[in-house]
Formats: sequence, C-alpha cells, structure tokens
Amino acid sequence: VSSSPRTPGTGAGTAAQRVVVVGADAAGMSAAHQALRTARARGHEIAVTVFERTSHTSYSACGIPYLVAGDVAGADLLVARTAAEHRAAGVDLRLGVEVVGLDVVARTVIVRDLRTGERARHPYDDVVLATGAAPRVPPWALDEDGGPVAGVRAVKDLYDGAAWLGMLDAALAGPRPVRGVVVGGGYIGLEMAEAFVRRGLETTLVTRREVMGTLDPDLGARVRAALEEAGVTVRIGADVDGLDTGPDGRVTCVSAGDERFEGDLVALGLGARPRSELAAAAGLSLGERGGLEPDDRQRVADGVWAAGDCCEHLERHGGLRVFVPLGTHANKQGRVAGENLAGGRPPEAMARFGGVLGTAITRFVANGVHVEVARTGPTTEQARATGREVASLVTESTTASGYMPEAAPMAVKVVADAVTRRLLGVQIVGGPGSAKRIDTAAAAIWLHARVDDVARMDLSYAPPFSPVWDPVQIACRRLADRLDRPADAGRQGRPGG
Amino acid sequence: VSSSPRTPGTGAGTAAQRVVVVGADAAGMSAAHQALRTARARGHEIAVTVFERTSHTSYSACGIPYLVAGDVAGADLLVARTAAEHRAAGVDLRLGVEVVGLDVVARTVIVRDLRTGERARHPYDDVVLATGAAPRVPPWALDEDGGPVAGVRAVKDLYDGAAWLGMLDAALAGPRPVRGVVVGGGYIGLEMAEAFVRRGLETTLVTRREVMGTLDPDLGARVRAALEEAGVTVRIGADVDGLDTGPDGRVTCVSAGDERFEGDLVALGLGARPRSELAAAAGLSLGERGGLEPDDRQRVADGVWAAGDCCEHLERHGGLRVFVPLGTHANKQGRVAGENLAGGRPPEAMARFGGVLGTAITRFVANGVHVEVARTGPTTEQARATGREVASLVTESTTASGYMPEAAPMAVKVVADAVTRRLLGVQIVGGPGSAKRIDTAAAAIWLHARVDDVARMDLSYAPPFSPVWDPVQIACRRLADRLDRPADAGRQGRPGG
Repeated sequence: VSSSPRTPGTGAGTAAQRVVVVGADAAGMSAAHQALRTARARGHEIAVTVFERTSHTSYSACGIPYLVAGDVAGADLLVARTAAEHRAAGVDLRLGVEVVGLDVVARTVIVRDLRTGERARHPYDDVVLATGAAPRVPPWALDEDGGPVAGVRAVKDLYDGAAWLGMLDAALAGPRPVRGVVVGGGYIGLEMAEAFVRRGLETTLVTRREVMGTLDPDLGARVRAALEEAGVTVRIGADVDGLDTGPDGRVTCVSAGDERFEGDLVALGLGARPRSELAAAAGLSLGERGGLEPDDRQRVADGVWAAGDCCEHLERHGGLRVFVPLGTHANKQGRVAGENLAGGRPPEAMARFGGVLGTAITRFVANGVHVEVARTGPTTEQARATGREVASLVTESTTASGYMPEAAPMAVKVVADAVTRRLLGVQIVGGPGSAKRIDTAAAAIWLHARVDDVARMDLSYAPPFSPVWDPVQIACRRLADRLDRPADAGRQGRPGG
Repeated sequence: VSSSPRTPGTGAGTAAQRVVVVGADAAGMSAAHQALRTARARGHEIAVTVFERTSHTSYSACGIPYLVAGDVAGADLLVARTAAEHRAAGVDLRLGVEVVGLDVVARTVIVRDLRTGERARHPYDDVVLATGAAPRVPPWALDEDGGPVAGVRAVKDLYDGAAWLGMLDAALAGPRPVRGVVVGGGYIGLEMAEAFVRRGLETTLVTRREVMGTLDPDLGARVRAALEEAGVTVRIGADVDGLDTGPDGRVTCVSAGDERFEGDLVALGLGARPRSELAAAAGLSLGERGGLEPDDRQRVADGVWAAGDCCEHLERHGGLRVFVPLGTHANKQGRVAGENLAGGRPPEAMARFGGVLGTAITRFVANGVHVEVARTGPTTEQARATGREVASLVTESTTASGYMPEAAPMAVKVVADAVTRRLLGVQIVGGPGSAKRIDTAAAAIWLHARVDDVARMDLSYAPPFSPVWDPVQIACRRLADRLDRPADAGRQGRPGG
C-alpha cells in the first residue's frame, strides 16, 4: 500500500499531501496544526494523521510536579487541548495506536492498534517524528518484571502523575509520617522535593553532584541552602545504586554504597533520554546523546522531519548538539517542521529553528521558603570548555528596592567572553520575582549583546520591582567594569537603589 | 578668583582637576563618584565638589508614594547613600548650599549658603549640571503667598514625603472618613491612589485623558477598570482648573469646569519640568521641553556637562528629544558625564549614553486588586506619528500556566513597524509577575530585534512562571503571523500553554 513520494506544493488538483505525525504531544501537535495552517494559506490540499500510543494528547509534562503537590486540581487541567479540539481543527488523531515500524524508502509507517493488536501500513509523503523523551529509570529501580519497584516512580507523563497521586494518598492515609526520597537534584528533583514537603512528607534529596547541576556550583549551593532551610535533608555527592524492599515488595530505602536513605516513596529525577528507537530501527542516524539530529529546518532526510524531545538541538551560538527536552523547543520546532513540510518552499526559504540557549527556570516554595532559580547560556565551566577566555562574577542584589517590604535577596552570576565582552550566560538564584528576569539575559544573548550593551539598556525600574539598576544589568555592568580593570578583579561594590 | 580652564588629563604634576557638581541626587552623585573612579584609575588628580541646596542626597524620589502608603518605615530608608558615605568616598559634599550663578566663560559658579546667606565664587575646570526636575504645580493649587494650598501637595522630594505623612496622620486622627483626590492619572497618580486607598481614604482620581496616558488607551482602560474594582472613583476627561477652600484655608474640593470633586487631601501627579533656570541664566540653550540638551557624551559646552532630570534625553531609535525624568537615566548619564570629564579621552573615544526607550513600570495594589503596568518604546499613536506603517495587536495571556493557582490575566500589546517588522514598543497590563517582563521587550528593542526574532528566542518556561509560550513572545509571534497574512488581521487565537 506504499505510494510514490510527491513534492509538496506541486500537486494542485491531485490528491492531498499525506502527512503522518508520530506522537501527539507538544512537538507533534504543533507540527500537525502548523501544517494545516500553512497548507490552508497556500490553498494546498493536505491530510494530517497523528498516531499516539497513549490516550493523552498535548499535556503539560512540566505541570506534573504541581499536580502531585496539590496545586492543580486534576490531571485533566494539564491537557492544553483535547482530542476533540484537535479533531475539530482538522487533525486525524488516532489515540492508542503505536507506530511500530518506519520505512523511509517506501514512505510508509506500520502501526499497531494497542486495543485490538491489529497492524496496518500507512503511507505518507512526509512523516514527522515527535516521539518525545523517556525518563531515565536505572536498573536498581526495576523489579523482576521490569516495572518500577512499588513506591518508586519517575515523573514524566500523565500516568506517572496519576500514580503519584494514588501513591501519596495511600501513604498519607496510614498512621505514621511518610518519608519521601528524591533521587536527583535537577529541575524535577527540586520540584518533587517541593511537592513532597508541601504534602507533608519528611523529605530527603540525594544527588550525585551539587543541587541544580546546570548552574555553577556556587549558585547551586544557594539552592541547596534554601532546601535545607525548608527542612529537606540534602545529601550531595551520593550516587544512588540500589534499594531495599520490605516483605510486601515496597521500597523501604535507597542506598548509595554503604549509605542508606529511608523512604516510603522514591521519586526519580534522573533526567530523560530521547525516544528514538523507531528512528534507529529505520536506519536514521542518531547523535551522541541518542537523539535525532534534524537540521535547523527540522529536516532529517527526504520526507522525514523531527521535532521536540526525541531530537538533539543545536545550541545557538556554539553550534554544538545538546539534549534539552523542554516544551518550548518542542512547540517551536513543531511549528517549523509543519510549516516547512507543507510550505513548498526551497530549503533556503524555509523556516528555521533558531537554536537553544539552555534557558530554564524553576522554583522551590514550601515551609515559608521561596527560592527561584533560572539560567541561560553556558555555565562558567561550559564556557571555558570551548576554549574561550571567560570572566564571571556573582552580584548580590535585591528583587525590589532595598527599603520595600518585598525586597528579597537575589544573586546574579554573569558569564562573559573576556576578549569579545559578549554575554554568554547568566544564572539567577533569588526570592520571589527574581527568576523570570533571566529572559532579559536570554534576549540579550540571543541577539549577541556584549555585557556593555546590557549595562546601557533602558530597563524598567520602580521600587516594588527592582533597585534603580536592575540586578541583571548591574551584574553586567560590574563585569564590564572588571574587564576594563583586570587589577580590580576582587572588588565588589554594593548594588544601587 | 576665576582660573583658566585646563584640559583634563594634561595636568600631570600640576594642580588637581577641579570639578563642580550642581545637585546631589542620582545624576550628580553618580557623576561625582565616577569622576573619582576614572581619575583614580588614570592616576590623575581630581577634586570633586558637590553643591546641594537641600539637606538630602541620593534619595529615592520613586519611593515616596510607598513611604506615604506605609510600606517604608521611615524617610531615612529612602536615602541610598548618606552624606557621610559620600564624603568617605572622597566627595567634597556641601549640603544647604545653592548654586545661584554660573559663568561658563570664567568657569566659575556662585554659591550661596542657605543658612548664613553668604555668597562665594567657586572656580572649576568642569561643571556637571544635575539640578533635577520640579513637580508641575498649577496656579490654582497655590495660595496668595505662592505656596501650596493647605491639604494640596505634589509628590517629588523628601520634604513632600514628610509633609504627606504629617497631613495623613493629622487627617486620619479626625473623627470622619478622609477623602483623597488624586489629580493626574500617570505613574505618580496611580501610586498615590494606591497609597490613599491603603491608608483608608475614600479616593477619587481625576485625569484629563485616559488613566496611564503613556499607554495606548485600550490598555489604559484596563488600568482604570482595576482602580475602579478597588473602589477608586475615577473620572477621566476632566481638566482640573480650580479648588475651593474652607474657612480654615484648607482645600475642600477641586473643580473641573462646573464639576466638583470633594477632598480633604489632594495629591498632584501632573508631571515634572526640568529645573534648568541656572543653565538658562548662564546662556545655555534649552530644548522645547525646557531641558538641557547634552549630546550622548553628556556634554553641553566646553567644560559643561549635564545629566539626569534637568535634561531632555535622546530617544534611542528615533533620535527625538524626550523628557523622561527617571533615576535609571540619571544614574547612567551621571556615570557617562563623570567618566568623560575625568577620562581625558578624545570625543570619539568617550563613553556614550545609549538613549532612552521610555521603559517604565508601576503597579496598583490595594483592596485585593493587584495590577501591574509596564511599557517600553512608542505607543501605537507615537509610532504612527513618525510616518511609519505600524501594526499593533493585543494578546490575552496569563502570568503562569493556566492550570496553576497563581495564573492571572495578562494583556500584552505589541507595536511593530509593518514594513521592517522591527519591534517598536510593548505595553503590559496584568496580574502579579506580569510587568517586569517588559525588560525582555526592552532588551529586544534596544538590540533592534524584529518581532520574528522575539518569536524564536529561547525564553524561560515553567508552570509557575509562564505559559509554554511566554506572553511577550506569543504576542510577537502573533504579530509576525499577522504581518505574513494581512487578510487575517482580525483573527486572534488563544494563548498556548
């Protein structure tokens, strides 16, 4: 049932362009809708079919820790668009259907209906691989059947969300205090620690490196201090490599060498890996991190496009491949893929994904502690690894003018190229209102600004919002001053305002 | 006692360069300290004398409404640096001394000690005019002696702050409810309305145009709605032109034509004008708005520099002169002036002020209402006035992912050049956490970004902070989409995330 490939946009009057999308979350659905919009704008016939093995579509994976914490009343609220809404917009959405084979020469996918077990071949002109990422679950967390040990679970999809709610409700219904262990000190680790503390668990966080390993260690240590202030027991430098179970098969503790951390519930925040098995079996090449490597038009091969967490992304300035599973990139890449596959444009006129800076943000809010964390661009160590001469500096400031009741401490670390004076990266750890300012830095880095440019910008000021010099700006100004006067490298003034 | 002018930096081994600064607030003290730092870095002798007619130095004028509201425990907290701290850093600071004359040929200022009445001549090599701005007080607000009518006052300096605290305490000690009228709907108007409501006053705001006239009227109307929701009586389109007083000489109401607005206390938020009398008397030319017109090196004439609110500023992109009295510009311009007067560099190598975008931010928080307001760049009308073809669009979004408890509405208006697609201006009105995002737009505009660039940027996302597409970004993306498809100009999708 295969068909010969067609060039999009050449088929006026002929059959519609057939598009298959594999995966119905952010990247896949963005691609599907953008393909429909682009085709409609061109008056071009298109048929978009999306296969999704789960029963979920367009949900917020990032919202799951907040569902677990009790901030979100129900898992349905995490669904941005329902299947019915997608279908009403013209997408042929097939839930519970897994794509089990891909023939990029014959331009056909083989699908299996997970309810009936039936297989079918489905021809396409263009396929979009949007298979997402899978959480890393180490062997020690699995039972004999290959499933997670009872009480242990990752935090990735809506099934995990539902499972966590059930596990917590059951544990909290018992007579004794519940102990939670979070393994991993990154974004999910921090957010699950928040969820555990807010649900009343005695919480331990165990991590191999410093907390928030995507920050410079000096800023990561500030996040750790905030966790500890909120009553979380934090153990850094411990590599969890096993667990014990009780007679009922439930976890009782995890272990790192000889050390044991008791817990009734264990959240795994150990990162994710691209789901790229389908692509690999089809003979498509994968990168070092196991992800697809589309070009900046999201094109992998003739008629094959890829977007989102199954891909490695191009870092904007260095051109390196990085793996940054995040909905923001998935959405943007999906749009690029959809526009390009339906646009009928030559490669040089296609839409392009602009690359990633590694911008990320999170928070820990529990037990009267409110710390926000954000970063963009390389850390000091990452910047040095590229062979640059790098200067970096931490500035202590406040989120508002110091005399305002809402003023909270805010540390900004700025990383710059000491020769070109280009701003490379910024990290923020601070109180309420501090972290979203990372976008000022992200915009500046995106547009190739020097620290001097940021120091001169007309940024907003009023006492409830900032000192007179915005903390990001003052940090850039101080680094610029230091680059002017290397001899003064140790000096640090106090913030204005 | 005058002296012949010297070229800075040519005097190694001779007497120190003599610098006089007129005014000891943000601009003046920034200039003074930067001149000292620059001279020290060069190993160049310098003597910096600052004359200030009041007894205050380096205070936050923007903090006064929050002092009045009761957020700030005392006026001393608004002083960023005390006189003693300035002196310890090497500034010869003379408080209570007014500069009453300036001879730019003889390079001399005439000063008068306000306690003793004594006059003296003080020679300089370079003078920095940093005389600030004065609040606009219309004739109807003045009594026969030229002072403000009792109960009526502007909101500009620490004397005003102290007066407001006294007036409020006295009024609130009385038996009946206190009625407050705010005349003017700009930043000070909004902030004094907040202060009045929070102090328990029955508050009326009267303004000639829509509330927040520096926004497009459709966004200004949103701010007005928030004020009304908090119980403020808002009258727009009324031009206050008189007042009545009681037998005790105190204000009882203000009037606009036949209309009367009763009030025991009347705050004037009618803007400010540059204090440039000294410069005018010295024969220096002033701009249309009455301010000094330094070049982007802050140079006015040979040996004469100016910085801060006594100046008209260059708008960054249009090159127009604008009057934007704000501490952020004062600080930056003061640094530029100080560096250049002490740096001994040729004009082409001097530091430059980068211009203003008109970035501004404020909020109204009272009676359970929390609205934040921010803007940067021209409004739609201002952009059209430059002869451009302009496109603008309002996007409704939320401050956090829609399912989070902290999600609040947030409107973003984007103004762009329809031909070049350059981002020109952005306005934000929304809930907690919305306004400081204006800096993302300000950075993008500063660096000449197109709306397409902002749409592609790697901005931060996590559910407590943003929908998947940041509201500023989604607004730019939608305007970019509209510019691609002019026929769809009326269409508005819903925000993602």
